[in-house]
Amino acid sequence: MLRFGALIAHTRDTTFGKNGGGREASVTFHEIINLHPHPSDVERNLLVRCIAECLDCAASCTACADACLGESELAELRGCVRLNLDCADACEATGRIVTRQTSPDLRLIKATVEACSTACRACAEECDRHAAHHEHCRVCAAVCRRCKQACDDLLLAIG
Amino acid sequence: MLRFGALIAHTRDTTFGKNGGGREASVTFHEIINLHPHPSDVERNLLVRCIAECLDCAASCTACADACLGESELAELRGCVRLNLDCADACEATGRIVTRQTSPDLRLIKATVEACSTACRACAEECDRHAAHHEHCRVCAAVCRRCKQACDDLLLAIG
Amino acid sequence: MLRFGALIAHTRDTTFGKNGGGREASVTFHEIINLHPHPSDVERNLLVRCIAECLDCAASCTACADACLGESELAELRGCVRLNLDCADACEATGRIVTRQTSPDLRLIKATVEACSTACRACAEECDRHAAHHEHCRVCAAVCRRCKQACDDLLLAIG
Amino acid sequence: MLRFGALIAHTRDTTFGKNGGGREASVTFHEIINLHPHPSDVERNLLVRCIAECLDCAASCTACADACLGESELAELRGCVRLNLDCADACEATGRIVTRQTSPDLRLIKATVEACSTACRACAEECDRHAAHHEHCRVCAAVCRRCKQACDDLLLAIG
Repeated sequence: MLRFGALIAHTRDTTFGKNGGGREASVTFHEIINLHPHPSDVERNLLVRCIAECLDCAASCTACADACLGESELAELRGCVRLNLDCADACEATGRIVTRQTSPDLRLIKATVEACSTACRACAEECDRHAAHHEHCRVCAAVCRRCKQACDDLLLAIG
Repeated sequence: MLRFGALIAHTRDTTFGKNGGGREASVTFHEIINLHPHPSDVERNLLVRCIAECLDCAASCTACADACLGESELAELRGCVRLNLDCADACEATGRIVTRQTSPDLRLIKATVEACSTACRACAEECDRHAAHHEHCRVCAAVCRRCKQACDDLLLAIG
Repeated sequence: MLRFGALIAHTRDTTFGKNGGGREASVTFHEIINLHPHPSDVERNLLVRCIAECLDCAASCTACADACLGESELAELRGCVRLNLDCADACEATGRIVTRQTSPDLRLIKATVEACSTACRACAEECDRHAAHHEHCRVCAAVCRRCKQACDDLLLAIG
Repeated sequence: MLRFGALIAHTRDTTFGKNGGGREASVTFHEIINLHPHPSDVERNLLVRCIAECLDCAASCTACADACLGESELAELRGCVRLNLDCADACEATGRIVTRQTSPDLRLIKATVEACSTACRACAEECDRHAAHHEHCRVCAAVCRRCKQACDDLLLAIG
């Protein structure tokens, strides 16, 4: 398994050659979160992990819905496509909301992260049902569970 | 600068202790893209890099808009907040569209990636104007330029 | 107050002249929902109203955040901008998820609609605080309350 | 064909009885756009129509993708589902961006609205191919064309 930065580095190396302009591979949104003039009280690592997992889960679910759409057994994957789409929507909205630190409303944040955790669980369970036949569903189920865990850990910290 | 995987690993280590369950840090959406039963003709590395940069840029712009909102010189940052919001919207939509490989419509994909490149350029220019006073704007301008480059490289490959 | 169809009709008339091509003003998504081959059990009117209110609330919150951004008293409106952005994100995701009728997961739908109701309440309360000074906040608070009601009515029906 | 306001009124009447609390049916985001302290130069009617059509088109495409997913001939509708998803993403991002009037960047707005017009055209053409067999595709193609027209009219006005 590649890490995100390594992935970007790899794709750059492949595209531009090993010395392709010396561009550094990195993911940067967390640096900007760290530079907020009035950071929220919530433990920053939990925030950033939840956002990172929401981004990866949203993209993974979008990709899994699309991979399902290309399968010959598509008819059996209707429910999986649907839950992938729902989960992607929930993760994107949650990632945006959790990213904001200005004047947070904790009730709103908790309800959103709880809904995201529920969406990730439902999608993981459905993907699990197809994991034996479709590797993309197996991988996607794992991402959903990781995102659910990050949501639950953040909820625990918010109290 | 941390890489994405390293960032997730770091936040997990901090949260759960170095041996916190042995969970592997990784970003996974690209694995699912690689498992599509009928992959598109577009060079996969360019696709994946464009998606990864769109995800990072969308989250960075959401975070920069929010950091601007917390600054005492907020009045001078109105245009920056607005362009950050626009750029986040463009990058999210583009990330989703580029992720899909089933029956792609190249005109649609090109127009979308071009619009994203334009949004990234406009946001980078505006953030640059505030870079001397606001570190989050300086970092965000760099992310926007990286995302613009990834869009332009993908456009070149699509032809 | 204009209705949506009337609004579209009005803007068309103004733009193209009263006989501007005879285009009919309408909003159509609900027709497509009614044509689903396997409609969900949920009372269709409640579904459609919830979606319509989510669309209007998302657009209203996006517009109110932007109007706040243009005000001279912007500094006092930071929290309002932030909650407007959160509420827009929650309403858009909810509108999409409630629209889907294929293989619904009721736990997921309930958690999402509950989170949306909570977001609408928080945003309405914050907009109310500025309603005396900013007409756009007064109008936006009313939209948020209407959307909250539509969410709550749908939740009651789902049980 | 019901209009949006009439639709909301109808669903309320049905749900709560003809005298169901006297709530007025309306769509309100355009009022908030009209209350912006520094409105943009673009002709307001064209802005509002473009936003209204983007909202309806996004919801229609989400609903058509979902209706396709429920059809027995799903295998032939793969490309239609995919373009519906793309078009919904493009319309949502465009609706948000066009809604904002603070410090607009015209290059960004034009590129975005052009991409949306392209997405609507591609989706309309694909939906047309299935219009004879699937009424939801026929209706969706019409919505996409209406949205394309609203985008093109706005582009003409921006110059």
